Amino acid sequence: MARKAAKEKKRRDRPPPALRELLRVPGGGPVDLSSYDSRAVPDGPRDKAAGLAATTLLAERLAGLQDRLYAASTAGDGRRLLLVLQGMDTSGKGGTVKHVIGHFNPAGCRIRAFKAPTAEERSHPFLWRVRLALPEAGEIGIFDRSHYEDVLVARVRELAPPGEVNRRYAQINRFEQSLAETGVTLVKVFLHIGYEEQRARLLARLDNPAKHWKFSPADIDDRALWPAYQEAYELALERCNTAATPWYVVPADRKWYRNWAISGLLLEHLEALDPAYPKAGFDVGEARDKLLSMP
Amino acid sequence: MARKAAKEKKRRDRPPPALRELLRVPGGGPVDLSSYDSRAVPDGPRDKAAGLAATTLLAERLAGLQDRLYAASTAGDGRRLLLVLQGMDTSGKGGTVKHVIGHFNPAGCRIRAFKAPTAEERSHPFLWRVRLALPEAGEIGIFDRSHYEDVLVARVRELAPPGEVNRRYAQINRFEQSLAETGVTLVKVFLHIGYEEQRARLLARLDNPAKHWKFSPADIDDRALWPAYQEAYELALERCNTAATPWYVVPADRKWYRNWAISGLLLEHLEALDPAYPKAGFDVGEARDKLLSMP
Repeated sequence: MARKAAKEKKRRDRPPPALRELLRVPGGGPVDLSSYDSRAVPDGPRDKAAGLAATTLLAERLAGLQDRLYAASTAGDGRRLLLVLQGMDTSGKGGTVKHVIGHFNPAGCRIRAFKAPTAEERSHPFLWRVRLALPEAGEIGIFDRSHYEDVLVARVRELAPPGEVNRRYAQINRFEQSLAETGVTLVKVFLHIGYEEQRARLLARLDNPAKHWKFSPADIDDRALWPAYQEAYELALERCNTAATPWYVVPADRKWYRNWAISGLLLEHLEALDPAYPKAGFDVGEARDKLLSMP
Repeated sequence: MARKAAKEKKRRDRPPPALRELLRVPGGGPVDLSSYDSRAVPDGPRDKAAGLAATTLLAERLAGLQDRLYAASTAGDGRRLLLVLQGMDTSGKGGTVKHVIGHFNPAGCRIRAFKAPTAEERSHPFLWRVRLALPEAGEIGIFDRSHYEDVLVARVRELAPPGEVNRRYAQINRFEQSLAETGVTLVKVFLHIGYEEQRARLLARLDNPAKHWKFSPADIDDRALWPAYQEAYELALERCNTAATPWYVVPADRKWYRNWAISGLLLEHLEALDPAYPKAGFDVGEARDKLLSMP
């Protein structure tokens, strides 16, 4: 009994798993998505109840770190964080946005969902619209889809000549490198769902008239191209996986695990930034006296 | 006992108070802010516990209405809502943003905090930066300060010639009228706090080093100009109070009442819009069959 309690205590006291190591795509070779289990729970809570509880525990720490990040920016700290969400239809990008922002003060978040480019956007280089949507100092940016669409759907549906698509990987790497150098912490997450889970989620949309607007027959066409999309993701995850801006694969069949893992990833990155409240740039006692002496 | 239960039932079943009527600034004459009690709880819950519970009850309805508003926009409904928050320092604009977004899916919200204009913003007409920040179809916009600063601080601190400031009221009215005509429901809220409550809130900021970054000695200078600001607000509330775009005064000394009242105001406006989920633009049965027949 004492041994069991000690073991339990040890489990509780161990440092939280370094999700940054665990979920990071290893560098230096091709990526094989079929070797990743979309239903896996590789570390952390083992079931839904534990997952929800664990995520709730992270919320306050995340909110505190965001507050410090934002406060620091008012004193000249230019750092910011950008969560990039990619994944097949129904993989939970929208749900993640909703959930993640729930942790933070929304006034300090900059959310952007990238849809098929408009005529104006198409008249510019593909990174143009992305640059316009970047978070400012102290903010948390969230991209629901991103510049990666330009090497994903663009590749699969041949929206650009192959040579041009192939040049984009290096352009993305240079772009992200420059972001990293100017204080943007990128957290690039591929939400990995399984083929059967997608079918179930699409059927659920069809079975609920309040969700028909989220469905398009083109979703089925995309699903028919599943292998080509997986291949395009594998290429992006291999070619744009640098030390400064790595990719993470989050198993996304279980929403509670997805939410916990992404919350944890954000926590680890924000803790590494360790933003600090700025010192007052004025005499606090004097301000206090002045306030009290006013009529 | 039966009579008491019947009375209780009647109280529960009565329609929610029309906050739109209750809090609306009456038209047709000068506004006297000193006649508004910033600690009042003119209707609805009577204390904090009841206020928090009542606000929680509104959350689900607000989220549902927002979802329908957003869904409708995907089928061409151009309507949107814009909450404009004005008030003295510490009146709770930021707190309201945080709280209100808590009800909604943040991906469908567009938040903008207006600070002192940048050099670029100053080089344009004063409404320029406001037009750039408007919500798109289906969105809920939230302005933390707004174009009203250009007749408030601009008036009090003489940032523009008096003649120019005086012309702005009519410009604002034309601008807001055009918004209303293009499907923007404006909810303009003046967060009314008392002079003593502001002192308490500023002192609380000074007493907490984690909040020093929110404080500026200029806040005290502004406080010394309290009567001039109240007068500037009275003019704005009188001159820009039209049938299509009225002003609401929300007593804001009690945060729980402020949050309940603004949630209620938003609910009434969204219910009046009564957005509807669009009908599926495709054959649901066919899509279902196709999905099930895929390997």
